[in-house]
Amino acid sequence: MENIHNSPTLKIDLAALARNYALLKSKAGGKCSAVVKANAYGLGVREAALALYDVGCREFFVATLEEGVELRNTLVTGHGSQAAIYVFHGVRKNQAKDFIAHELIPVLNDRAQIEHWNNAGPAALHIDTGMCRLGVTPAEAETLAAHHWTLILSHLACANEAAHPGNAKQLTLFKKALAHFPGARASLANSSGIFLSNEHHFNLARPGCSLYGISPDTARPNPMEHVATLSAPVLQYRVIDHDQPVGYGGTATARKGSVLATVELGYADGFQRVLSNHAFGYAAGVKVPLIGRVSMDMVSIDVSSVPEHLRTPDLRIEFICRQQPVDMLAEAAGTIGYEIFTGLGRRIKRVYRHE
Amino acid sequence: MENIHNSPTLKIDLAALARNYALLKSKAGGKCSAVVKANAYGLGVREAALALYDVGCREFFVATLEEGVELRNTLVTGHGSQAAIYVFHGVRKNQAKDFIAHELIPVLNDRAQIEHWNNAGPAALHIDTGMCRLGVTPAEAETLAAHHWTLILSHLACANEAAHPGNAKQLTLFKKALAHFPGARASLANSSGIFLSNEHHFNLARPGCSLYGISPDTARPNPMEHVATLSAPVLQYRVIDHDQPVGYGGTATARKGSVLATVELGYADGFQRVLSNHAFGYAAGVKVPLIGRVSMDMVSIDVSSVPEHLRTPDLRIEFICRQQPVDMLAEAAGTIGYEIFTGLGRRIKRVYRHE
Repeated sequence: MENIHNSPTLKIDLAALARNYALLKSKAGGKCSAVVKANAYGLGVREAALALYDVGCREFFVATLEEGVELRNTLVTGHGSQAAIYVFHGVRKNQAKDFIAHELIPVLNDRAQIEHWNNAGPAALHIDTGMCRLGVTPAEAETLAAHHWTLILSHLACANEAAHPGNAKQLTLFKKALAHFPGARASLANSSGIFLSNEHHFNLARPGCSLYGISPDTARPNPMEHVATLSAPVLQYRVIDHDQPVGYGGTATARKGSVLATVELGYADGFQRVLSNHAFGYAAGVKVPLIGRVSMDMVSIDVSSVPEHLRTPDLRIEFICRQQPVDMLAEAAGTIGYEIFTGLGRRIKRVYRHE
Repeated sequence: MENIHNSPTLKIDLAALARNYALLKSKAGGKCSAVVKANAYGLGVREAALALYDVGCREFFVATLEEGVELRNTLVTGHGSQAAIYVFHGVRKNQAKDFIAHELIPVLNDRAQIEHWNNAGPAALHIDTGMCRLGVTPAEAETLAAHHWTLILSHLACANEAAHPGNAKQLTLFKKALAHFPGARASLANSSGIFLSNEHHFNLARPGCSLYGISPDTARPNPMEHVATLSAPVLQYRVIDHDQPVGYGGTATARKGSVLATVELGYADGFQRVLSNHAFGYAAGVKVPLIGRVSMDMVSIDVSSVPEHLRTPDLRIEFICRQQPVDMLAEAAGTIGYEIFTGLGRRIKRVYRHE
């Protein structure tokens, strides 16, 4: 059961992840954390965080207390750790003791959270400058200037569109708010923000998606390295002896003489059903179309164009790979690479390559 | 950290699940298994399978060997078990010993699998009658009639559309194939197939989705009970003091005087990003619209219409509930309830109610 030929697999190149971190850190002027929420965007927080720690990352961001505890336990077990772990969603009533016990730093988003925290230890302040999601308003922030804050942060809403007027607007609001916190450490740039002007860098960048290979600006060539490859094994080849409907609803027709591969990857694995009838995979380097609807556990691929001697039981179909980066698969699904990665399910084996 | 008010939660009513099984079994003429693949469609295979075992289910279907092993271990630990576990994807090279060790019955789908199995124990035969996905052709099946088969099965492609001509076609093909296997136990009906004519029932029904509350025929009133309720906590309320854009890309505008709740549920939890700007939740029984894009870990909900005294820190927004069954949320996302359930992520706490 250990043979990876038996399972859908996400192969994660931790060396490429580390190089992406180095590039982002360099672009950000040398001050760079890593966002590893949502299980490191689905790639596996334990391995990703340890690989990033190994190349010098000492500040991490997660979404929730549970994620913070998991990461702290990983770092303690893995290396002994001097890392700071920030929790974006902040602290709820009665959670302060858990934050203290695991040395987690809450990002405080409103007055209720500030009260729950009650100066129990280091904390970050989130000022909303245009997301309208979490954080205090700039006006509220002014009234909190007397506190000591480990970090003051805000979050860009449109940084993946470099020319969006919202970027300048948020920058202006953030700088204006920071004027009330002289000497405070500040953080604004997500992955995309790092590639805007240096003005956005402040004291700490917070890349997430681009660590994992997602393009910071889909309108331009992707400067990031490919990190994660999704592939799945063939369950069965079908040589089609007469025209026949394929899959649920019979939405496509397999043509006489064609060869289909039934592949072990379905929407329960996060291969979205919206990809039915209009996505592609790669088989031995050949681009092969999906045919019919994506099922829960399977998908049908027309492998007629793959040379017969390559259609072996061990052939794997790649769905995220160098030829088809996650951003491209996401575009076919009408979404973004983030959703593709974070949607990958528990049956997909994560396999890590260190070199 | 045990307080469910702190997490997105899927509350699963195991008594309702058991009643759904009883209804399906009765409709199927008393012979009924349960399909619990993909972690029991995301609801949790351990608890679901034990609840079904408790009400007499003795035959289960999973997709893969790994799922079979997990289920066998669950049943052995839970009750001591006489249950049969079938594995839809069949057996690969060198896996036969694992099937034997865990008393799993492979569904054999082609000659290669039949060779891998090599009569190592009881096996089922899958005859393809119109899915063109897994299974031998009816012509191949004839040549396999001399073997002993524990079960002969086929799979309906269009049973959720009762009037689809494919149903009669598949039934005819299956009956014709079965003529070569006198006395064999046969199985054709999935959830939807149970609600077609009795002719589709044969010796064993194999419902999956409708156990969990999904309608077997979305064109008719749903005869199944509601099983699983998805809700998420409010992270922060925002009283909007001037018109402002909300979320990534600023795709929506929060109006002055409105109140938004930032809710801890995002696409990393399986709340699909395609629901951005056009889905609803329920807050204290009030229908409340989503506003802006779904983020990875959060979504913004306009709760202006919820009476102020109900907008408490403990308020939870329901996204799958009696007022909005999973099929309805799925329709808003342009997909089916199966994908919604199986897509629910690991951060969502599964909470089980037994009575």
